[in-house]
Amino acid sequence: MRRGTPQRTIERIGQYRRLLYDVKKDGRARVYSHDLADRIGGTAAQIRRDLMLLGCSCGSKTGYPVDQLLSKIAEFLDNPEGENVALIGIGNVGRALLSFFSTPGPSLKVTAAFDRDQSKVGRVLHGCRCYVMEDMERVLAEQCIKTAIMAVPAGDAQGVAEKLAACGVRGILNFAPVPLRVPPGVFVERIDMTVALEKVAFFSRQASGEEQDKV
Amino acid sequence: MRRGTPQRTIERIGQYRRLLYDVKKDGRARVYSHDLADRIGGTAAQIRRDLMLLGCSCGSKTGYPVDQLLSKIAEFLDNPEGENVALIGIGNVGRALLSFFSTPGPSLKVTAAFDRDQSKVGRVLHGCRCYVMEDMERVLAEQCIKTAIMAVPAGDAQGVAEKLAACGVRGILNFAPVPLRVPPGVFVERIDMTVALEKVAFFSRQASGEEQDKV
Repeated sequence: MRRGTPQRTIERIGQYRRLLYDVKKDGRARVYSHDLADRIGGTAAQIRRDLMLLGCSCGSKTGYPVDQLLSKIAEFLDNPEGENVALIGIGNVGRALLSFFSTPGPSLKVTAAFDRDQSKVGRVLHGCRCYVMEDMERVLAEQCIKTAIMAVPAGDAQGVAEKLAACGVRGILNFAPVPLRVPPGVFVERIDMTVALEKVAFFSRQASGEEQDKV
Repeated sequence: MRRGTPQRTIERIGQYRRLLYDVKKDGRARVYSHDLADRIGGTAAQIRRDLMLLGCSCGSKTGYPVDQLLSKIAEFLDNPEGENVALIGIGNVGRALLSFFSTPGPSLKVTAAFDRDQSKVGRVLHGCRCYVMEDMERVLAEQCIKTAIMAVPAGDAQGVAEKLAACGVRGILNFAPVPLRVPPGVFVERIDMTVALEKVAFFSRQASGEEQDKV
């Protein structure tokens, strides 16, 4: 089931979980596929297909039990033993990410942060201990870390990615503003928040300009 | 030139700027298109096309002057008068984003933050003043805000997006874990960092599992 699952399917399943938490908070015990479709912007048929992947099916009249969906999603997405994640780069971006990911979900936990700056070593930020880069190999091995978040300057990113790959990391969430070249078998997802905000501002100015032209 | 520029081009131009800051920090005054291509993972021809859009051309032997590129990019991407941005939702995510975006770039600045929680009102976080939601219309108008960052719970997101659109916001960077339905002319970019990290962890476990299978 899991082998070869497309990236978009994995993203959607993660998104369903976020929605289901809200449904549950609203005190509802069951949810319909068309209800999820409305909230997520997809079709009910696609949602039923995704949920079938997880082993959930239901009569369209009764809806899905929310708790069962949540536990099936956890079974699919999470490591039942929990999973340690490393953060590389404890600058402004890194600290914001540590705060953001300090309560990320039921199974993922940032347990080690690394920086070149010796003065940060030994500190505990948002519950996470800071180490020097030289300790990376030892700490990643001790904590069985296979997933890392990178928030280093552009110029350091490629070197850090190679080091992570050499230490056995197989998934990198990259906030550095450069694409990474990694060995086969290492998955990279890139988020550039500054570029995203600049893009939004650009198109928002464009739309505002067009409205003014019409006046 | 700007009308109808594809989203990917805008993203790349933002990425060039980030790379050029690094090139400049390294003390270099000129840069070659193949050099940028190496760093960004594109082709030199595409980079020359993008830079030509900005009105920059050069002999391939001498490279581009870094300062000229940076000022052309600023001319293209930035509002010369600077630009105010609003943040909606000052929970854990919102506070992390305020810290992240407190020094975002030369022209964009988060100048107003909004939350339902009255106890946050009047505080100044990372240089940004916090307001109640009811003040949104007035504050956005006073500060001419057309761009907003949303970090509200999923259940609130659609309502907040509609309110922003009604207040004249034309670009939304959405960190809430739901897609938004917005009127035509409003641009939305969505970033779900938790889903991104879960996805990376999923594929990293998959890769690690395959390696163990081979042993």
